[in-house]
Formats: sequence, structure tokens, C-alpha cells
Amino acid sequence: MHQPRAILFDVFGTLVDWRGSVIAGLERFGALRGITADWADITDSWRRAYRPSMDRVRRGAIPWTILDDLHRDALIEITRRHDIPPLSDADCSELVNLWHRLDPWPDSSPGLARLKTKFIIGPLSNGHLALQINLAKRNNFPWDVTFGADLFQHYKPDPTVYLAACDLLGLPPHAVMLAAAHNDDLAAAAGLGLQTAFITRPTEFGPIPTHHATPNGDWTLITTSVTDLATQLGA
Amino acid sequence: MHQPRAILFDVFGTLVDWRGSVIAGLERFGALRGITADWADITDSWRRAYRPSMDRVRRGAIPWTILDDLHRDALIEITRRHDIPPLSDADCSELVNLWHRLDPWPDSSPGLARLKTKFIIGPLSNGHLALQINLAKRNNFPWDVTFGADLFQHYKPDPTVYLAACDLLGLPPHAVMLAAAHNDDLAAAAGLGLQTAFITRPTEFGPIPTHHATPNGDWTLITTSVTDLATQLGA
Repeated sequence: MHQPRAILFDVFGTLVDWRGSVIAGLERFGALRGITADWADITDSWRRAYRPSMDRVRRGAIPWTILDDLHRDALIEITRRHDIPPLSDADCSELVNLWHRLDPWPDSSPGLARLKTKFIIGPLSNGHLALQINLAKRNNFPWDVTFGADLFQHYKPDPTVYLAACDLLGLPPHAVMLAAAHNDDLAAAAGLGLQTAFITRPTEFGPIPTHHATPNGDWTLITTSVTDLATQLGA
Repeated sequence: MHQPRAILFDVFGTLVDWRGSVIAGLERFGALRGITADWADITDSWRRAYRPSMDRVRRGAIPWTILDDLHRDALIEITRRHDIPPLSDADCSELVNLWHRLDPWPDSSPGLARLKTKFIIGPLSNGHLALQINLAKRNNFPWDVTFGADLFQHYKPDPTVYLAACDLLGLPPHAVMLAAAHNDDLAAAAGLGLQTAFITRPTEFGPIPTHHATPNGDWTLITTSVTDLATQLGA
């Protein structure tokens, strides 16, 4: 293995606990508004809408749309299905913004700080740039470069996202590593010649690990955390 | 004055001393290769080629070209004029890379660290992203967001650079401040509704201050350094 020059990170699930953070945010909102609901179930529905929403952009069924707007449309639909009273525009914005205020896994920021000493590090997420900035500032992710899906106007796993990022870094794909908790993201990157690091996040989708928690490809590295990745790379 | 949410910085001359750094790099190269030349004069010629080179891109006379390649073409032309023996490709790359290893003004990194506690900060330079990453890593510029001219495929002062940056930040122009040592850059930003901070860099173009060192517009703030900017903004 040749050491990469840059490591790009998936963010939702890989660096931040979207599920725990969104459930907590919805519970606070519910308590404030006096709305009772199964907020964990609503959070899971909200996340399940993620891939089909992006697929509509990917297929060209709708023009380029940032994640905030996809989240908003999905939220309105899901709250309707759960018989929650219609949300005001301000409440909708407040809840969509929960995805800008997600808590990190405890190893994320310390691991990134170590990796930054040896590598160029940055996010490669389906979140847009403004969202990445908010997550990084809140959680002390010390990025050297900030990519957002709106720079590419494409969502992963579209090949252009990975290749355009390498191109902007001025590096060939084999000098770039993608670190992610998701096999499909790593498979797309590996297919284009990037190095890959699987980061196990067994509780991303809830207390019971899903198939996502098990590496199923020939990844360059298998790791249990960002700090473990740093250790394996000698950082 | 309403405080901005984000402050974007011009880089060459505003945060780094390109002239002193490039002269020093060329002198080291000349000593190593046994070439005697007026390296300060060559550096000044190299910089004078900057604006006309970008203007060719701006007018569409040549397709989008990153600064490294514009620098390389200009260097070949200038060394020929100065009767310097033809440079190898490797030497050319080495010298073009001097622009990735420029020294900061002493206040740049401490000032940015203070501003980062209150504002989103990032570069808005005609350098490309890979160059910005190298300058930031070398000089501890703690950016929250990294813009490069190659994201926009336009050079300042084209309006699209300033407006696309605001758009990617998710902010209206009046919530963004451009900080620069150059009146023309600030004039373009102010014309589009951005706030402006002039940073005086009297020795950017050599020991004798030029007209660039004097603010000539109605800028939001007039400052003498990045730390002075931080102080004036209460950071």
C-alpha cells in the first residue's frame, strides 16, 4: 500500500451520529410544541427518503436541488403521514437545520486532527457546502479543503463527484483515499481507482447493527474509528 | 455597520508576501544552478504578466487555465528575455511551485485564528484550490471553507466569482465581507453589495509603496493588518 496524499470523508454516519442527533432535536421540538409522536420512527423515515430524493436528481426527474430542500419536502410528507399538524415555514426550517447541527462520534475530531498532520483532509458528502461548514465549525473538523455536493451538482455515488474532487486536489485517484461507513460509497470510489477505508459504525441506524456495519468489499483498510484510521496510517 | 457572517480573503499580497518569497526562491535556484540574474526584476516581470494572462482567459482568447499553467508560460517567456538558459520541465515545475510555498505576513495566521472564532473565513483568490490548500497547510490558515478560482472557472474581478461564493455560503452579499490589499478587488465586491475591508500592505510590490498601498474607495473598514481587522470586528 502506498500512502495516500489526501483522505476524503463521508460525513453522515461516518463522522456524525445523524440518527441520535435528529431524534434528540425532534424530541425537543415536540416537547416545545406539545406534539407527541414516535420521533425515532419519523427520523428513520426521514433518512429512508434520502436516497430516493437524491435519485430523482440523479435521474434528472428534478433539477439540481440541495439537501436542505430535499429534506424539507420529505419532512412535510412524513409529518403528514404521521398525522402531525402542518408545520409553519419557520418550524420546517428549524427542523431541516437539525442536519446542520449533528453531533460527532467521539473519535471524529481527535482522529481528524491527527490525520491532518500527515494528509490533506476534507469532506466528500452529499451535504452542500453551507451545511458542511456548519458541521465543521460546530464539531471542530479541521478540514484542509471543503467539498460540498453543490460544487459538483451531483450526488454520490455519481462518478463525477469522486473524479472532480481528485481533479480539484490536483491528484490522481490512487493518491486519494475515501473513508466511509458505507460499502456502496466505497465501492463507487474503488471502481474509479481511489483507495478506501471502511469505518465501522455499528449503531448508525439504531441500537441493532444492520448489514451496513459489516465491510463487504476488498477495501484498502478496515477500521473501527477515525482514530484507528490515524493509527493504521501512522498519524 | 452590521457585522458580516463570513469574511473572504484575497491571498496574494493580502495574506502572503509573494514578492519576498519568490525572489528568495529564485535566488536559491540561481545559486544551485550557477545562474546569475536580477531575480527581483524577474519576479516583478513575472507578477506583471499575471493580469494580462488572466485577461486572456477572461476574454475567452484561451479556455479556462489554472494559475500554475499561466505562471509556467510567463516564466518561459521572461527567462528567455533575460537570457537565462532554457529551463528543464522539472525546473519549471519547481519554480512554478514557489507560488505554493509563499511566506505569510506575520499577522495573517494569528489574525485569522481570532476571526475564525466569530466568523466563517475562507480564501477568495485567483489561485486554484490545490494551491490554496498548500498555502493554508504551510502557513496555518485555519479556513472554514476553501474557494479556488477553478471552482468558478472565472478570475476576479469577474462578478460571478464573488456572487457564486456568496451563493455557496448560502448568504446574501451584504452578509459577506471581502478583505483585500487591492482597491480594484474591493471595488468589484462593493459593486455587488459585499462589505469590504482594505488591508494596507505597503511593501507588497517592493520597499517603496505604490498607489496600491493607499485606499481609494469608500470601504467598510480600513485596516493595517489581519489582527487589526480582528480588533475592529471585536474578535
